[in-house]
Amino acid sequence: MTRFALTVEYDGRPFMGWQRQTHGPSVQAAIETAAHAITGETIAVHAAGRTDAGVHATGMRAHLDITRDIAPFRLMEALNAKLRPHPVAILTCEAVADDWHARFSCVARHYAYRIVTRRAPLTFETGLAWRVPQELDVAAMAEGARRLIGRHDFTTFRSAHCQADSPLRTLDRLDVSASGDRIVVSASARSFLHHQVRSMVGCLALVGQGKWSADDISAALDARDRAALGFNAPSDGLYFLRADY
Amino acid sequence: MTRFALTVEYDGRPFMGWQRQTHGPSVQAAIETAAHAITGETIAVHAAGRTDAGVHATGMRAHLDITRDIAPFRLMEALNAKLRPHPVAILTCEAVADDWHARFSCVARHYAYRIVTRRAPLTFETGLAWRVPQELDVAAMAEGARRLIGRHDFTTFRSAHCQADSPLRTLDRLDVSASGDRIVVSASARSFLHHQVRSMVGCLALVGQGKWSADDISAALDARDRAALGFNAPSDGLYFLRADY
Repeated sequence: MTRFALTVEYDGRPFMGWQRQTHGPSVQAAIETAAHAITGETIAVHAAGRTDAGVHATGMRAHLDITRDIAPFRLMEALNAKLRPHPVAILTCEAVADDWHARFSCVARHYAYRIVTRRAPLTFETGLAWRVPQELDVAAMAEGARRLIGRHDFTTFRSAHCQADSPLRTLDRLDVSASGDRIVVSASARSFLHHQVRSMVGCLALVGQGKWSADDISAALDARDRAALGFNAPSDGLYFLRADY
Repeated sequence: MTRFALTVEYDGRPFMGWQRQTHGPSVQAAIETAAHAITGETIAVHAAGRTDAGVHATGMRAHLDITRDIAPFRLMEALNAKLRPHPVAILTCEAVADDWHARFSCVARHYAYRIVTRRAPLTFETGLAWRVPQELDVAAMAEGARRLIGRHDFTTFRSAHCQADSPLRTLDRLDVSASGDRIVVSASARSFLHHQVRSMVGCLALVGQGKWSADDISAALDARDRAALGFNAPSDGLYFLRADY
């Protein structure tokens, strides 16, 4: 048995999310089906993060175990061939130690959330960014973001369906940068709660619109109550960028 | 009657090209149909450039004449509403002089051609860039590009279906820049022949692969013969960026 670590890029639009579902296509099922077609083995793929429906990845990490002897490069090429026409690509593939685990060995996860501020509908990027029809105050959003950095109880910014034992998380980075009509919110932490990035971005957008102040962000955090959430941003703009080990 | 100038962004993937066709959808027909739905008038839309099937635009310019009294902003909003779900967006709309013509008043056209060099298939960018599975020598491509700048007979780099009277064109700019696995070829001229940018890029890619030298580019140009063309790059990577007036 060899354990292989993968770097996976996927366009989340056609998927119900990373995780295998009975009611629709998933990235996990697409890769497991491709791996089965290559090896004949029943294979489980584990990822660093289980992204929701419509969420994308440019550098998801995952692993799988294969009994048959196969070189990493050949496995990658075969997976990419079998994955067609799914918008899923294996960017790297390497043999790793048997105790390396895409999820449990991961020490940091990095996400980006993309916003486009314009009146006109999106064309190339429909489903790939969140369009906000007015300009946003990026400096105010950055100030709001700073209120969320550090170790906090993020209950307000956590989905009702979140299965994590604790609402405590340490947010290492939450940056807001802009170029023209494009805004990117970059978030890094050891781990995130379910919907945490989207919920933080939704509230920062309220700040950008002038509907909320940075103090309203602090008050929402302090409330430790999902009902205090201002807005949950759509999945369209969320990208899993990178996992550290 | 008021003449309106538009800036149009479109994803070329679902279209037979800019120009109205009997056998499939076109960007021109999509905009004309939307304008008719708004005004009840039979409207002809003229563009700075008639892009081919699968070619994209981030800043195509076009104009149309409307008899009914309508404000530019309202026209833009109404066009964007009626254009759904086509991946076509009107980014700007302004009233212009009656003798302003999107095609004939245009003094410079700017295109970009996007290449992604990687083994893995594209996901987000399928049909939006040309994937080349090996690294390309960008410095060699830039040297090859310099051989094409200036006033030349571009017969070699012109489609057999090109309807221009003369194969003489003045190429003002042909730059090659790279960032990671992304290469952009930027081309500017008063006007281009049919397939000229794609044909130039196809040959530059041969230079990048080491199959051609910069001297081969010069020889192909001097041949003034379509049969001397090395390769015509696919429409996927081509974007009409901007028109100057």
